[in-house]
Amino acid sequence: MAYDAPIAEMTFTLEAVAGLNRLEGLPEFAAYDADLLAPILEEAAKLARDVLAPLNQSGDSTGAVLTEDGVKAAPGFAEAYAAFRDGGWMGLTAPEEWGGQGLPKALSLAVMEMFHAANMAFGLCPLLSFGAIEALLAHGTDELKAAYLPNLVSGTWTGTMNLTEPQAGSDVGALKSKAVPNADGSYAISGQKIYITWGDHDVAENIVHLVLARLPDAPAGSRGVSLFLVPKFLPNADGSLGARNGAKCIGLEKKMGIHASPTCVMEYDGATGWLIGEENRGLACMFTMMNAARLNVGLQGVAVGEAAYQTAFAYAQDRKQGKVEGVDGPAPILHHADVRRTLTTMRARVAAARAICYACAVAADLAEAAPDANVRAAAKLREDLLTPIAKAWSSDMGVEVASMGVQVHGGMGFMNETLAAQLYRDARIAPIYEGTNGIQAIDLVGRKLSGTNGESMRVMLGEVEASAAAARATNDPQLVQIADRLKAGADALREASDWMLAQMKSREQDKALAGATAYLELAGDVIGGHFLTRAAVAARSSDGAARARRLALAGFFAETALASAPGRVAGITEGGSKFLDNSEALFGIA
Amino acid sequence: MAYDAPIAEMTFTLEAVAGLNRLEGLPEFAAYDADLLAPILEEAAKLARDVLAPLNQSGDSTGAVLTEDGVKAAPGFAEAYAAFRDGGWMGLTAPEEWGGQGLPKALSLAVMEMFHAANMAFGLCPLLSFGAIEALLAHGTDELKAAYLPNLVSGTWTGTMNLTEPQAGSDVGALKSKAVPNADGSYAISGQKIYITWGDHDVAENIVHLVLARLPDAPAGSRGVSLFLVPKFLPNADGSLGARNGAKCIGLEKKMGIHASPTCVMEYDGATGWLIGEENRGLACMFTMMNAARLNVGLQGVAVGEAAYQTAFAYAQDRKQGKVEGVDGPAPILHHADVRRTLTTMRARVAAARAICYACAVAADLAEAAPDANVRAAAKLREDLLTPIAKAWSSDMGVEVASMGVQVHGGMGFMNETLAAQLYRDARIAPIYEGTNGIQAIDLVGRKLSGTNGESMRVMLGEVEASAAAARATNDPQLVQIADRLKAGADALREASDWMLAQMKSREQDKALAGATAYLELAGDVIGGHFLTRAAVAARSSDGAARARRLALAGFFAETALASAPGRVAGITEGGSKFLDNSEALFGIA
Repeated sequence: MAYDAPIAEMTFTLEAVAGLNRLEGLPEFAAYDADLLAPILEEAAKLARDVLAPLNQSGDSTGAVLTEDGVKAAPGFAEAYAAFRDGGWMGLTAPEEWGGQGLPKALSLAVMEMFHAANMAFGLCPLLSFGAIEALLAHGTDELKAAYLPNLVSGTWTGTMNLTEPQAGSDVGALKSKAVPNADGSYAISGQKIYITWGDHDVAENIVHLVLARLPDAPAGSRGVSLFLVPKFLPNADGSLGARNGAKCIGLEKKMGIHASPTCVMEYDGATGWLIGEENRGLACMFTMMNAARLNVGLQGVAVGEAAYQTAFAYAQDRKQGKVEGVDGPAPILHHADVRRTLTTMRARVAAARAICYACAVAADLAEAAPDANVRAAAKLREDLLTPIAKAWSSDMGVEVASMGVQVHGGMGFMNETLAAQLYRDARIAPIYEGTNGIQAIDLVGRKLSGTNGESMRVMLGEVEASAAAARATNDPQLVQIADRLKAGADALREASDWMLAQMKSREQDKALAGATAYLELAGDVIGGHFLTRAAVAARSSDGAARARRLALAGFFAETALASAPGRVAGITEGGSKFLDNSEALFGIA
Repeated sequence: MAYDAPIAEMTFTLEAVAGLNRLEGLPEFAAYDADLLAPILEEAAKLARDVLAPLNQSGDSTGAVLTEDGVKAAPGFAEAYAAFRDGGWMGLTAPEEWGGQGLPKALSLAVMEMFHAANMAFGLCPLLSFGAIEALLAHGTDELKAAYLPNLVSGTWTGTMNLTEPQAGSDVGALKSKAVPNADGSYAISGQKIYITWGDHDVAENIVHLVLARLPDAPAGSRGVSLFLVPKFLPNADGSLGARNGAKCIGLEKKMGIHASPTCVMEYDGATGWLIGEENRGLACMFTMMNAARLNVGLQGVAVGEAAYQTAFAYAQDRKQGKVEGVDGPAPILHHADVRRTLTTMRARVAAARAICYACAVAADLAEAAPDANVRAAAKLREDLLTPIAKAWSSDMGVEVASMGVQVHGGMGFMNETLAAQLYRDARIAPIYEGTNGIQAIDLVGRKLSGTNGESMRVMLGEVEASAAAARATNDPQLVQIADRLKAGADALREASDWMLAQMKSREQDKALAGATAYLELAGDVIGGHFLTRAAVAARSSDGAARARRLALAGFFAETALASAPGRVAGITEGGSKFLDNSEALFGIA
């Protein structure tokens, strides 16, 4: 099954919706020029189409395997990784001083969307390396940076994140791995970690593990956790690979999907590691990696959704069934209205999630690179607000859209090795890892809404309303109708936000948390609708087909997701009263 | 993982919600007495818990296999089938003259829910046998009945349905299998059929295939299709098994789920068969089986949803993570508000779907057995209306609830062999087979709504409004609020129904079909909310916990599914205008 990156759609979303132009001319992105966008996206699209997509289904069938010599990647993955590495894709956003290209994250996000869409299991490998690079850049000593960044940035080595232990999943503070100081300033790391993505493999010569562990006498809970860098092979002073470190994969999880991404049980047995950041501040360092990783996981939802759409669309053109007026003989099922509705739903939701993710990336870029401190601060608020929405709304969307893709395929979609079925299985992990979507919702309501006293949401809602006003000002009857629905959606989100804020200040925070997931869904719908509206307005200067398509997608999203928004406030503000006050009757607990 | 049938919930739903009492004292159900309900459900629950549930995960891992001697069921399935057969479960609803027990279908549905919940792959085997029994009872000659019914009803033999061919999935009229008359009144059947559930196996000594094929010179399309009975072994006159017939399994599909249910490619090579019903009227005969099968597939959604709920609830009690006020040490995740919301959502949706399915079964019983012809006719209208809703709404619900169950499990839910992951994979087939859910929606809008000129929906809406009035009359503030939301939901469904009817009479039927799936979802929500409301009102005389639970579930469903109903009418009535009028821009087709 072919995957063709929707370059025009990505470019339009970056430029006309997410505001990529705000990054042009910034000193930190001196290397970036708008003319670079097209050649970079086209080059990435080739790698996705010609190298990664052809391995997607074979990788699913074969999977990675654990041997006596460690984990062997699925056939072809080492060669694909070499092509990725040699293309310089790992260093797209890294600073030029470490061998990177110094380009905006937003650009890299579009590139990574292609790689995830073509082969999500593959895409996870660089995703983790990005995290390791970010953590080192932000918190590493100069020695660690010099020893590890060049090889990570070039893709010669890969990175991992080691948080979870059997008893400590979402509650990272409960972890037990130990770090004991050695005489030379290094540490001896011991413990077991689970769910370690690409924790071992043979596609690169070394692996840089970032591991959370406790120092002796560290405080209990999350305030006693430190971050360590633990390489698979200890580098010599000359940069060559030295001794094998005491870090190994002792088991591979048998998962429902992403079979070609080895999910390792890692054992650290007195492995040599080095502290990253301050003692007992490991969680803060880890959050540096997590924020970027969360956005990238949301992006996986977009990517799998796009792949599911393309697969279903191709099948609907190909599969003939039943008669349709105006078509001789059996008609392609694309001619059936219900199939068209499903495809439209898929396409509209993917477009909305893509815009949310790209806008979040542009905000992250501005938060780092804008010369004006006020702009940076505002962008940081925006990045913080959009990150949990990008992660949760988009990854949930990926699951739902992949399920719709299965449905378009009929019985064929239930065959385990069709791409549609694989996408349904692959997509299911994204709402779980990097903080479950429930945790994203709590983060949104807690840190992001209540933690800013509603400021970041108020600013966002102001933009949503401006977007509705711009649509109304066109006097195009369709856009005016969209504007009305977007405004009603914004009103609903404002009402829910105000209630959430008040509730979080009360003694009954549990009732706010009880509505958090429904609140995040509403926020994603309204903000997604805002971006689709902006796209439809911007597309008025596009050619006829593009203009009609964007208007249709925005209109469809408005009459489905937005029109139902006002009726969903009750489910946010009242839910807790039913199942918290009646917990004994419902769950047998008081 | 244990499955414990929710007997009290089932009994309450049958009696206080679905109206099982209307079947008492009817001559056709002379064998039925309300006192039988409890012992039958308890006996079935034991088989489900002790025999079927323990094989669910092993059956998923091992699956059925095709050998030179035909298909071998997964280990333990033959013994489990023997226990099922010996318990007399196959004959629960069959007439006593054929060895059955003459009990209502509604009762059998509750029993089958247990079997599907414990082991959906197993439950498919009797589901298909039921269909064969129904078709023979309705359309078989006396000779065929005498030769096949006793062994089918006793469960000694099993049945199959053979519709699909590679080029003919949803469009059964496109099938090509041939039936050539033999001199003795039998037919020689040739052709290939795919997706044949339990098409071959070793759990029973003979298999009775019902096969759609074309007679020579039959008209093209669906009006040239006839139904034939083709046994695996030809029975001798004395009832013993004779020669092996030319019907065999030549391949097993590799599916995403229900691995222990062999999905066969069947080859008929001049196999001996006998006509069932009239020539070229095979589709009508097949619909006899299909209606019952559709309800049973909806029931699978209920069953898998219940199993997912039980599994997630058990995990949430067991898994400790994070701190919660009032709980010492790490708290079971059940104490987190967001997890409780998810479990409440699962439970409310399963309860609503169960009520829809059971009410459909009671209507089917009344349609057959009520002495008064008017009652029979009204019940038939109700059965017809509820069947596509029961099938599609419940099977979609099963997928969504299974996905929620995965989410509650966190990373563990993505491990392929956990029950949560299995249920997510198993559940995905139900929206596809027995007529995709898109076809159910078209059936609802076409035959059921438009075909009765709205009569059956009008009567249903009258009952929904009566249910709202009864809730309001209690003067309980919570029930009054539920009543308001149910009434608003009914108004929304009426508005959408009126639009659909008008649209179906116009020249633009495509716009009705474009909204059909969203219309079915709305109908399921409103009718499901009606049943939950009825349950909450009826439970006012129950004990405190049951009363509080039913009020909480009805209230939660009302503030989520019902409160959003009015806002969803636009997505039904306007959708087509976006993606049908802009098909060239969206899909490249005019």
